[in-house]
Amino acid sequence: MAGPPQVIARARTAVRIALTSRLEELADDTAASRYTPRLLVGVSGGADSLALLATTCWVGTRMGLETEAGIVDHGLQEDSAQVAERARVQAERLGATAHVLRVSVDTGAAGGLENAARDVRRSALEQLAEERGALALLLGHTLDDQAEQVLMALARGAGPRALAGIPRRRDVLLRPFLGTGRDESTALRRADTEEICALLDLDWWQDPMNADPAHLRSRVRHRVMPLLREVLGEQIDENLARSADLVRADVDHLDAEAAALLEGLRRDGAPSREEGDLLLLDVHALAAAPEPLRTRVLRDASRLAEQAGSTPSGKSLLRRQVLAVDTLAVRWHGQAPVALPGRIEVARRDGLLVWRRNET
Amino acid sequence: MAGPPQVIARARTAVRIALTSRLEELADDTAASRYTPRLLVGVSGGADSLALLATTCWVGTRMGLETEAGIVDHGLQEDSAQVAERARVQAERLGATAHVLRVSVDTGAAGGLENAARDVRRSALEQLAEERGALALLLGHTLDDQAEQVLMALARGAGPRALAGIPRRRDVLLRPFLGTGRDESTALRRADTEEICALLDLDWWQDPMNADPAHLRSRVRHRVMPLLREVLGEQIDENLARSADLVRADVDHLDAEAAALLEGLRRDGAPSREEGDLLLLDVHALAAAPEPLRTRVLRDASRLAEQAGSTPSGKSLLRRQVLAVDTLAVRWHGQAPVALPGRIEVARRDGLLVWRRNET
Repeated sequence: MAGPPQVIARARTAVRIALTSRLEELADDTAASRYTPRLLVGVSGGADSLALLATTCWVGTRMGLETEAGIVDHGLQEDSAQVAERARVQAERLGATAHVLRVSVDTGAAGGLENAARDVRRSALEQLAEERGALALLLGHTLDDQAEQVLMALARGAGPRALAGIPRRRDVLLRPFLGTGRDESTALRRADTEEICALLDLDWWQDPMNADPAHLRSRVRHRVMPLLREVLGEQIDENLARSADLVRADVDHLDAEAAALLEGLRRDGAPSREEGDLLLLDVHALAAAPEPLRTRVLRDASRLAEQAGSTPSGKSLLRRQVLAVDTLAVRWHGQAPVALPGRIEVARRDGLLVWRRNET
Repeated sequence: MAGPPQVIARARTAVRIALTSRLEELADDTAASRYTPRLLVGVSGGADSLALLATTCWVGTRMGLETEAGIVDHGLQEDSAQVAERARVQAERLGATAHVLRVSVDTGAAGGLENAARDVRRSALEQLAEERGALALLLGHTLDDQAEQVLMALARGAGPRALAGIPRRRDVLLRPFLGTGRDESTALRRADTEEICALLDLDWWQDPMNADPAHLRSRVRHRVMPLLREVLGEQIDENLARSADLVRADVDHLDAEAAALLEGLRRDGAPSREEGDLLLLDVHALAAAPEPLRTRVLRDASRLAEQAGSTPSGKSLLRRQVLAVDTLAVRWHGQAPVALPGRIEVARRDGLLVWRRNET
């Protein structure tokens, strides 16, 4: 008897590996009892998410797990309700219970519409996953998305965290089609997901925003990547994804080290604490740390201080702001405090680096 | 009185910053007495190196330092002697003593002709710098080279060390035109160096290899970068260089940590050492280290073992080879030894990871 077409077999393997590893993780987790044997797949109606949903239904059934679909209607396009309805019909044809979530996106958000839509979509799906007790929330990102993500990070001169691209998994979130990172054949390409949809006779939707050159992602997808494949070779997507994996291994480690260091450096209860102080660090111990840890500690501390303050800016910290604060720690010569977003400033005082409200 | 044209002033600032920092470094170095107040500039005859030579002569004179030019004739092109002669004439016009070094490059080298030529050129210049007691060897790489370097690393899916691009300095080696990394206006573009040469009436040479599409660098320079500038914005070179800087900070730290860890893990004198063993590590302590350090230790150990063995392969270790060795350490279930380049294999034995000659 012939098995399924090769691309479907590969997709099933990818989903099975991701779910198995999630179940192993839960076997060690004492909080696992809050989950039900249920999976949620985020479904846009595009080829990637429909292929993932079909595959997850098949694999899930054989693992004793029920699959549901979360369909987010952002209401950003005129036909968004029809797109959501079409996705719902596809999902139910595949035997998945479908939940349509209507959300609203702040079209004037600081980081751009695309990012705002993604954040709203993500948190709606995470909330639904929690309500349904789903042990995993699966998203259909492919290797193509990963390659585009890395290029977009480079385009803005981003640091290692952004160059690390889209993570394969984070707690409940799984992206099986990004592969295992140890075996490249386990990752799926966007064209693979279209092939799966065609084989399964699924009616997928092409987001017109993906072809709109006003969007950076669209320009990267339709102009940059084809040229890179032509000039640098067809394996460029896999190679960008591999570079991202290698960077991510470093970044995960350094971020964890920095988080531990920050905890150890906090002196929020110092006797010299003043009214308006938000966060205090031991500046000498900080200055003794190597630069990649210092800059991470300063970023994390600034984020915490902004949360503790009352005027969130929605802005991210600039590299030169981090370096200016770092200079307070490592090359102290009586500099003025450094102003940060969210009406905060950082000053050096009594052997401490102090994040405080900036009232000026 | 008007100052020099802005681009010349920027180049002078870049060179002055690099030299000042080198002199500060030497002030703390007890071995500094082996240097003379002399600088060596590597000169290909291209716009970047001639602009650097002119600038270094000017700045060096004002810092009490004599400038010499090292011109490498690879003999790879028919007119290479003429190119070297033309560079020599330009150098002497600028008042620099010129040394023409004739070298030969192995045209069948494993890593490709371009890399082999660079290695031979570099070591000829380093040797000349040492003979002349030069306190710095300056090379004319620009921000464009850096951006191209990062893209070429991505094109092959390289890891963080390669994504970190070209270092600004390493011991005696300085690349002033890559800027300080803290202030973007201190970096020079290739077009800036051409403008400097035109302003100073210097007769620069265009390497025809740079336009040959058979070379990856040429394709990146002439096809990929122009499209990236058009689609992603003119600042893409600066942004790629900034990403490289951010990655480099992480990598330098992790590489140093890994080197220290490797020293601590070595058990070359273990009682169970056998004939043919080249390097032995404590496998349990290794397995307890985080992945980015383990993989670095395994790479470094493999390189040392290959040097200790007698059959250097000239090949670099593949990611999957490193991961296979890592699995011996962290997921041991009696696997067979892992074969590495240079007729080496790694086996697990008596709580040790053993690099040994592979006689099969």
